Parts: sequence; C-alpha cells; structure tokens
Amino acid sequence: MNLLLTLRILGALLVYLAATLLLPLPISFYYSDGAWLSFILSAVCCFIAGGCLFYFCKETKELSVRDGFAIVTFGWAFFAAFGALPYLFSGAIPAPLDAIFETMSGFTTTGSTILTEIEKIPPSLLFWRALTHWLGGMGIIVLSLAILPMLGVGGMQLFKAEVPGPTTDRLKPRIQDTAKLLWGVYVLLTALETLLLMFGGMSLFDAACHSFATMATGGFSTRNASVGSFNSSYFDAVITLFMVLAGINFTLHFQFLRGRFQDLHRNEELRCYLGIIFFATIVIMAFNWSGGVYLHLGDNLRFSAFQVCSIITTTGFGTADYEGWPIISQYLLIGLMFVGGCAGSTGGGMKVARILLLFKHSKVQVFRLIHPRAIRLVKLGNRPVDEGVLQAILGFFALFIGTFVAASLLMAACGMDLVSGGAAVVACLSNIGPGLGTVGPVDNFSQVPAFGKAVLIGCMLMGRLELFTVLVFFFPSFWKK
Amino acid sequence: MNLLLTLRILGALLVYLAATLLLPLPISFYYSDGAWLSFILSAVCCFIAGGCLFYFCKETKELSVRDGFAIVTFGWAFFAAFGALPYLFSGAIPAPLDAIFETMSGFTTTGSTILTEIEKIPPSLLFWRALTHWLGGMGIIVLSLAILPMLGVGGMQLFKAEVPGPTTDRLKPRIQDTAKLLWGVYVLLTALETLLLMFGGMSLFDAACHSFATMATGGFSTRNASVGSFNSSYFDAVITLFMVLAGINFTLHFQFLRGRFQDLHRNEELRCYLGIIFFATIVIMAFNWSGGVYLHLGDNLRFSAFQVCSIITTTGFGTADYEGWPIISQYLLIGLMFVGGCAGSTGGGMKVARILLLFKHSKVQVFRLIHPRAIRLVKLGNRPVDEGVLQAILGFFALFIGTFVAASLLMAACGMDLVSGGAAVVACLSNIGPGLGTVGPVDNFSQVPAFGKAVLIGCMLMGRLELFTVLVFFFPSFWKK
Repeated sequence: MNLLLTLRILGALLVYLAATLLLPLPISFYYSDGAWLSFILSAVCCFIAGGCLFYFCKETKELSVRDGFAIVTFGWAFFAAFGALPYLFSGAIPAPLDAIFETMSGFTTTGSTILTEIEKIPPSLLFWRALTHWLGGMGIIVLSLAILPMLGVGGMQLFKAEVPGPTTDRLKPRIQDTAKLLWGVYVLLTALETLLLMFGGMSLFDAACHSFATMATGGFSTRNASVGSFNSSYFDAVITLFMVLAGINFTLHFQFLRGRFQDLHRNEELRCYLGIIFFATIVIMAFNWSGGVYLHLGDNLRFSAFQVCSIITTTGFGTADYEGWPIISQYLLIGLMFVGGCAGSTGGGMKVARILLLFKHSKVQVFRLIHPRAIRLVKLGNRPVDEGVLQAILGFFALFIGTFVAASLLMAACGMDLVSGGAAVVACLSNIGPGLGTVGPVDNFSQVPAFGKAVLIGCMLMGRLELFTVLVFFFPSFWKK
Repeated sequence: MNLLLTLRILGALLVYLAATLLLPLPISFYYSDGAWLSFILSAVCCFIAGGCLFYFCKETKELSVRDGFAIVTFGWAFFAAFGALPYLFSGAIPAPLDAIFETMSGFTTTGSTILTEIEKIPPSLLFWRALTHWLGGMGIIVLSLAILPMLGVGGMQLFKAEVPGPTTDRLKPRIQDTAKLLWGVYVLLTALETLLLMFGGMSLFDAACHSFATMATGGFSTRNASVGSFNSSYFDAVITLFMVLAGINFTLHFQFLRGRFQDLHRNEELRCYLGIIFFATIVIMAFNWSGGVYLHLGDNLRFSAFQVCSIITTTGFGTADYEGWPIISQYLLIGLMFVGGCAGSTGGGMKVARILLLFKHSKVQVFRLIHPRAIRLVKLGNRPVDEGVLQAILGFFALFIGTFVAASLLMAACGMDLVSGGAAVVACLSNIGPGLGTVGPVDNFSQVPAFGKAVLIGCMLMGRLELFTVLVFFFPSFWKK
C-alpha cells in the first residue's frame, strides 16, 4: 500500500470539506442562531488537518487498487469525524459518539438520527446536516459509477458499457468527466425539487434542506415529524416523485436528458424497480384499506405510496407511523428495506439489479435440474452476465445477510429486543434511516446504547461502500507488500 | 414424465405404509386405548389405494430423473395424507387439515404440533406419531445419501465419493445397498438410545418414542412439557448426546463402525458442526449466567447445551422455555435454526456444509479484489469444490431466504405478528418444531389460522426435500415432453 499518497489525497479531501463547512455561515447570520463561530472553528481545524496531510505527505508514485479502497473507506470515515465538529463546538450534540453517528448518518445518506428535538437545533446546523446528505450523495454517484467499477466492486459492473463519458483507461480524467456530467444532473434535479417545493409555499430553507435529503435518498428533515409535519398532499406528491427519481441509476437520467429514451425502456433494472414500487403500493394499499387504516382512497394512495417510495429508495422520510399499519404492510416494508434502489443511484440496500440476478440465478439452477444437458446463462437486458460478476453478486448477498446477522447479534448483546435490534441494523446497513420498534418512524436512535451506536456507525459505512470496500481491510494479505 | 410408472411406485410405497400402520396395534391392545380399529381401517384404506395404483398402472419403461422428483415429492405428500387417517378415524384430531399438519410434521421430522393436550391422546396414536418421525428419518437418509445426489440436488453432491456401497451406475441396486448399510446404523443407534433411556428408568414406550424422535431429529414427545417433564439430568444428557449423533452425516457413523477414524477427523463439516455447537453453548451459557437465568454451572450447561443441540440438529425437544432467556441467547438460537445439521444426517436447515461453503465463497470474493490476478478456488477438506456444485449452493441459499421471506409474508397476511410468523416459518422450513412468540417452546401451532397451517405444511415439505425437489414442479418446462 502507498500510505503517503493515500494520506495526501485524504488531506486534499479534508481541505475541500473545510470549504464546505463555511457554506452554512450565511444561514447562521440570516437567522442569527449564534452557531457561526462553531463552523469557522470546525473549518479551521479541518483545513489545518487536511493541509498538514497534503503538505507533508509528498509522494509521486501511481495510485494502486489497494490505495483506492483506503481512500474511499477512510475518506468517508474522516468526513464523518471532521463533519461532526460543528455539532460538538456548538454544543447541539454534546457527546462525540452521538455527533459522529449523526454525521456518518448524513454522509452515508442514511438519515438515522439521535436528535430528539430537531426544531430546537440552530437552522445553520440543520442546514449542515442536510448538506452532509447532499455531499454524501455526490460522493456516492461518483463512487458507484466511476470509482468502484475500477476497483472491481459493485453492482455497476453490470453496466460498464453504459457509463457515459470518454472511456479512457486513465483513472483521473475518467472519474472527473463522469463526475461532472452526473453532478450536473444531480444539481439540476435538486434545484427543480427546491423550486417545486417553494412553489407550494415551503420556505427556501426548508425546501433546500428537504431537496438535499431527497436527492441523496438521505432522509434528515428539519422537523421532528419529518415530511408529515407539513401535512400537505402537494409536498408529499413532489417528494414521492423525486424520491423515485433519486432511486434510479443516474446514467439513465443523463441518457434521458440527451433524448435517448430507448435506453430507459431497455433497462431491465428500471422496469423491475418501477414494477416493485407499483405492486408494493397496490398490495399495501389493499391491506391498509382492509385493515381500516385509510378508508379514503386518496389518503391511502398518498400515505402508502410515500412510504413505499421512501423505504425502497432508502430515503426514510415519514408521513405516517407505519407501525400502526397491518403486520403484512410492515412486513412488505421490511422486505423493501433489503432491496433498496437501483445500482448507480444514491439509494442504498442490496440494489434491485442484484435481487433480480439472484432470482434469475436461482431459476437457472432449478432449470438445470430438469434439463441437465441444456446450457442456460443468466442474462440482464438480453446480455449474458459475466460469470465473475455473478459470483461477486452471490458473495455480496451472502455477506450482506451475514453482516446483518452478526450486527443484529451485537445489538441483542447490548440488550435491544429482536425486532428493534434487527430493524436498527437493516435501517443502517441499507442506509434507510428509521426502523421498527424502539427505533421506529416516530422514535429515534438516541436511546441505543453506546456500543450499539458504534456498531450501527460501522453498518452505515459498510452498507454505503458495498461491504467489500470495507471488508478488504480485515484481510491480512491486504496489508502485505 | 412417465406418469404410470410414477403412480405404480407410489402405489407400492403406500402398500408399505399400510403395513407400518399395523405396527401400533400391539401398543393399542396392551394399553387398551381403544384405537385399534382406527389403525386397521387406516391400513385397509391405504392398502386398497396403494394396491389399486400398483395393479392398474402397469408400465415397463425406465425411470427418468423427472419421475424421481415426482416420486420423492408426491411420496412424502401421499404419506402425510394417508398417515393422517388414524388421527381422523379415532377422533383424536378431528380436523383433516390439523391431522395432515401433524403427519407432515412427523414424516418430515419437523416436530411442530397442533396438539394442546398430548397426555390425553391414546398411547398407540402417540406411538404412531413417533413412528412417522422414525420412518421419515429413514426416508431422509436414503433420500439425501442415495437418491438426491443422483437427481443432482443436495449438499451431499460434495461427498459423492464418500457414500459407501458399490458405485454401480444402475439406480436400483445402488439405492438398496446404501439404504441397507445406513439403516443398519440408524436402527443400531435407535436401539442403543432406547436401552440407555430405559437404563435410567424410562418406560419402554416412552424410551422408544423419544429415541424415534431423537434419531430422526424430529422432536415429538409423549408429554406436553417435552423432555423437560421427566426432569432428569441423566435423560437430558443421553438425549443431548444422541441429538448430536443424529445431526452427523450417517456415512461417517458407518465409517466409524468400520474403524476408519481418520475419515471423521478429516471431515471439515463435522469439525465445523462440533465447533458451532461448542461455541454457541459457551456463549449462551455466558449470557444465561450474566442474565441470571442459571446461576448453577451444572444447570446452565445442562439446559443451554440441550437447547443448542436440540435447535442446531433441528430436533426441537425442549427442557427449558428459552423465551425467558436473554435476547442474545434467543438470537443465537434463531441463527442456529437456519444452520441445521450436517449434510447426510436426518437434520434439516440449510446444512453446515452449505453455510461453510458460503462463508468460503464470500472470503474468496474479497480476496479476489485484493489480488485480481490470483486464482483461488473454494475448497472443502483440501479438495476444490466443483463450480457447478458451488453455484447450486448459492442458488439454494438465495431460494431458502426467498422462501422464508415469501412464506413469512403469507403468515403476516393471516394476521400473525412479525416474530411469531417468521419463527413459525423457519421452524417448519428448517424442520425444527417450536419457534418463538405464539409458536414458542411452551406453545403449539393449534391457534395458527387454517391458511397459515397450509403454508407451513408446504414449508415442511419444501425444507425437507431441499427446496429444488419441490420447486421443479412450478416450471412449465418440467411438464413438457
């Protein structure tokens, strides 16, 4: 491993972070919330740390694949640590572990919170909280569409040929070009949502914060009662629409803007994703209606569709307490928690493409028993899937379930009940936000024991970085020359 | 498919079943429990049905692989249907669905019961109930060690070379020889356990019934409070030992008797199985002690080890209400429910070998990221695992989790809570017996809604026949010429 170069790049990233730490300053001055000094102090700390790393770690060697893993994993970890400073300096979140939990939840676009009274937090800190989502979302887009495929990880290997931009083999220009194109789409959609929310009467501050959280599929709100506190069917509709958009592969948005509509139609993952949303909404509506939760069709559609989209895209906004819904509705939502959004979106979870391929692989296995001599390949969108990619996906599935089980065991060890502990883990591992039980949609993560919070911080990071990127560090051979 | 020959063989199997239906008669006469007529009537019905099928479906063609699937799946289903007759004729279980549930639970060696007051059931029926376990166990040994590998299904593909008996390619002699050898071991162990239990003062009737249920890893007891009602540490120790033995690949018992001890030592699955039992017992003992459940070391070992062995071997006997144990102890037991026994044992679940290979496969996937050019194969016991077998195992894992999710969804649809519904499904899919919540160790399945019982009957069958064997029938191409 090339430690010096890795540290140098991490240093550069921290300098960028220092700059973004100054962005909430205008909000602080406008609302006179008194948090401005915390941001300046945080930015200075971050700048000094980053600057020192960048300045003293001089190195001219090329980046290796292993360095890539280290930069990604420790980049996210450093951001969570330094991004927590404003919460600590301002005293809004006094405990360091809590502040890191909140920041990791932000940068991984999870949206789980330890805050019990969100409305009492200074506006500039709430803005920073939403901004961590948005920056995390930017990171994820580049990570999943440009960096991870080069490292050999992630569902996007499936779509190698579909990533836009010049297909040069050199690392830096490719990442930069891809990033520029897709960030353009990301900024455009965020601006559009902000405008639409303001059009419905939301303040610029609330509209921007909620748009940041939507497009990043994060889920931090500026209100305790989340999106539900606005009690507006217009806002619900706008946010539902943009959650669905945020859960779609961003290359498809790009192709759409270029007028290549046939790419959207041809994309099997997109069809499957929209199909799941449609059927889950219909089924949940039927059970919510027969269970007497929503007797008015409009209300039923509004709240059921919002929750389905919020969960499958792993956003985690809430307009209803789904723990009051029939068991089967809750169960379907738990299922969607594992599924997640499309590969190449800001959504978390296992990703629709992986679930689709797992299903197809299992089907082929049964088919082979009936026709032992026939050769049938697993295909996605009429193209056969590379054997190695399929193996990686099957390994990912096993690791995801394994990590879920192991982490839930640790939650049980600190005394959480079966449902709450398991739900807390999947809520963090799939980067959703709320879970069930004591960490349900009307509760928060403040009462989780310290050890449990540390486990969940690890889950957020592992889930966001597609497991493999973090797990390589546990292999002794990673550290060998 | 060769329908006539399939029906002819099913007919022959029913004639055998008719003979076994007469075995409880001496018990009925000895205890004068008045159930003798029910058995004679059942045997006559079974004999007529089987005889007609055998006599009228004449066919000289060879058996195909597809016929094999049909014989196995419908064989188990027919046995569950006809084996339920004594319960119905005697009035001990008046509802046909309940009687089929109890019989399917018997023949699949699950051990889930719908009986609320077991002590009030005539002894001859309790003997029949235990006998369904024992016959089911015999079926499983032949199925997993001789039939399924020929059909291309099952974890035992891994041990192809280890199956004893002449390795002729002709179907019938091979199955018969394997069956004879392994049934010998099975009968021997059952007799030994019966003797040991009688030595401790158990009646011949109770000893035989409990030995049947132990060696088949079934779990039906002659008492409401299961093995716990005897309240004897000697019985607990004997049954714990034999549960562990029943969860081991029966070819290993055979090799042991032949004096080939090195085969046992070399067997990686066996080492892993014993290791899991050892560590799970230690961890559960530690938490049960710190949770204040058992403060006496002897008691702690006795009850914790019994429950660990009862769950991992998927027997399902109970000596303690583990729902009163700390959450983490319960959580570990749930984990063991999915693992199950060794391939080639009478135990259910996913099987230790599969879990071991899943873990190894995932490890290789992470290793490949660090060393993209290195070639590393998944090995079991120093031999590389065939790629096709590995793919089948990964498919099995996905299907097992998928079936678990789908069936739990159906349980939630009939109103069961999250924990009880999910636990009921894994208890039946892994052929364990008791679950958690309303189907916990001190409860039973009587209050599960009719639709839920039907789903669970399907789960028991699918779990017992390693999923694939049942799933092929849902493929249209299975039915085509």
